[in-house]
Amino acid sequence: MGCNEKDADLAAKSLLIADLRGVDSHGVARLSGYVRLWEAGRIHSKPNIRIVHETSSTAVVDGDAGLGLVVAPFAMKVAIDKAKQVGTGWVSVTNSNHFGIAGSHAMIALEHDMIGIAMTNGSALVAPTFSTERMLGTNPIAVAIPAGKEQPFVADFATTTAANGKLEILQRKNEKAPFGWVQTKTGYPSDDAAELKKGGAMLPLGGDREHGSHKGYALGSIVDIFSAILSGANYGPWVPPFPAYVPMPENMPGQGIGHFFGAMRIDAFRPAGEFKFHMDKWIKRFSSAKTVEGQSKVIIPGEPETEFEKERMKNGIPLLRVVAEGLENIGKKFEINLKEEKAAF
Amino acid sequence: MGCNEKDADLAAKSLLIADLRGVDSHGVARLSGYVRLWEAGRIHSKPNIRIVHETSSTAVVDGDAGLGLVVAPFAMKVAIDKAKQVGTGWVSVTNSNHFGIAGSHAMIALEHDMIGIAMTNGSALVAPTFSTERMLGTNPIAVAIPAGKEQPFVADFATTTAANGKLEILQRKNEKAPFGWVQTKTGYPSDDAAELKKGGAMLPLGGDREHGSHKGYALGSIVDIFSAILSGANYGPWVPPFPAYVPMPENMPGQGIGHFFGAMRIDAFRPAGEFKFHMDKWIKRFSSAKTVEGQSKVIIPGEPETEFEKERMKNGIPLLRVVAEGLENIGKKFEINLKEEKAAF
Repeated sequence: MGCNEKDADLAAKSLLIADLRGVDSHGVARLSGYVRLWEAGRIHSKPNIRIVHETSSTAVVDGDAGLGLVVAPFAMKVAIDKAKQVGTGWVSVTNSNHFGIAGSHAMIALEHDMIGIAMTNGSALVAPTFSTERMLGTNPIAVAIPAGKEQPFVADFATTTAANGKLEILQRKNEKAPFGWVQTKTGYPSDDAAELKKGGAMLPLGGDREHGSHKGYALGSIVDIFSAILSGANYGPWVPPFPAYVPMPENMPGQGIGHFFGAMRIDAFRPAGEFKFHMDKWIKRFSSAKTVEGQSKVIIPGEPETEFEKERMKNGIPLLRVVAEGLENIGKKFEINLKEEKAAF
Repeated sequence: MGCNEKDADLAAKSLLIADLRGVDSHGVARLSGYVRLWEAGRIHSKPNIRIVHETSSTAVVDGDAGLGLVVAPFAMKVAIDKAKQVGTGWVSVTNSNHFGIAGSHAMIALEHDMIGIAMTNGSALVAPTFSTERMLGTNPIAVAIPAGKEQPFVADFATTTAANGKLEILQRKNEKAPFGWVQTKTGYPSDDAAELKKGGAMLPLGGDREHGSHKGYALGSIVDIFSAILSGANYGPWVPPFPAYVPMPENMPGQGIGHFFGAMRIDAFRPAGEFKFHMDKWIKRFSSAKTVEGQSKVIIPGEPETEFEKERMKNGIPLLRVVAEGLENIGKKFEINLKEEKAAF
């Protein structure tokens, strides 16, 4: 696509982290979608990503319509550099595109003994409590926290009952979704995994009012506001769609999609060694909490992904045929000689 | 109790904000509980609240076992002062006590054209996903965001399916709770509002694994870590209980309970006027989103509380007889002549 090598490496790394950690929906399976956005002129392959406003602890970054996978590590680096100077760094990003998994960006902070935070808005799929209209994206939040001898704590979750990728898997298998994941066009509970195609909507974490969906709606809204209203990106129902064939919303109030990043230096609060000692204690105590029948242990956020990573580093990443074919097609499109590329490794 | 007048005013203000905003469980109804904690020697009425570590954008505050209602505004002011200097301020608090409603502290930032964030851990009532053990408090998060002509956006919610106060109300009425709020001692779904008294536990936002309880559990954990592991307070099952008659946990790893506060100056990101223009647009668009049958509008976080405040500023705050009697008893205990006090107003 004409990316420079450094950017291409950054983007590939983020996609591979997703695949290694078992988040297949956000790995190389997305590459065809990014290429289509580039073909539609919505992604610049040579963006001029830059800071447009800053203070000692904050910045707004303009992604210049670059690939989110490249814009996000740039912005996270700005946050980390500021945290080195003044203890914390907070960066809101405008004019960007889909950035892959939030967790991979938050985790950049870990190697600096910092807590990393990453969030992004996305095109509207989710109905607020009491609404039938799709107003929010699945707006994920990731928080990565260093530990000592234990694996780091890495939470990375959509602010909806379930991620959209899970609905897509059920659709492919022609299976029902649990009630509480989606609603019909008129706002009734539904177990149809294809409800989104029929004008329905995904539901905020909580599912319904009685079970706290107004909290999931508030969380998704906070992500939207931090990502887009602090930066000047589009928000709510005006966020550009991921599929390149879907027309852009009318009267868009901002530019591209928005992200928000934070980095907090541990030793800006207390010595890193003390913090890690207590994080290890926290993790061990929660891991060994009594379990319900049939479960062997309580899971620490990020633990299943770390297990996936170990296993896949050893045995490789299994790709669905349709994903592998998509990669082959991209290879042909860009006249990449796969045999030669393989030989170069 | 011997508080100085400024501290007593601060605490009273926070309790009144809760009552005015309709959060009756966290208003003057709590006063008797605070007095009992003071009688048990767990609350100092003349605390030496101080910064024990800081950088340009961060601080750790030691609450010296003061009333959380006094410690929290102190810490929030530190965050705001830092935000004035370097764009944002982040304060983790150790050695504190129950701080009332998170929202009242987050909202202090609004008058400075800042976004305010407040969270706290609390004694363990909530079982993580797959666990039968109470490991987390209801660990609320509040985020207050300024708007222009519209009312500010104020989200303030426990990271559980439902707040503990709602269970208490159902118990008093002898009514059932919806499934998804609590589980039995062995981790089975329950609709018994008194389940906590029988060794059961509250459930993280999401309710069960299929509906994303691991996300609510992760959120509650993040609140616990930011509030206590960054600061040196107690965490997880070691957080001191609110009722003064409940014995303290053994082998506590920290001091008191922990809070976390943030303040972000809007114009550290973009001009406040631009931000508020778009916040108003966001609020108006969400308010006017299509509704499900039977609902007149989509609610903006904080809107019901603002309505309560308008109504109660006009008509007064209704108190349950038991709460009024509690206040009268406190008055007698401290030999406060209510008639004279009234005359002084």
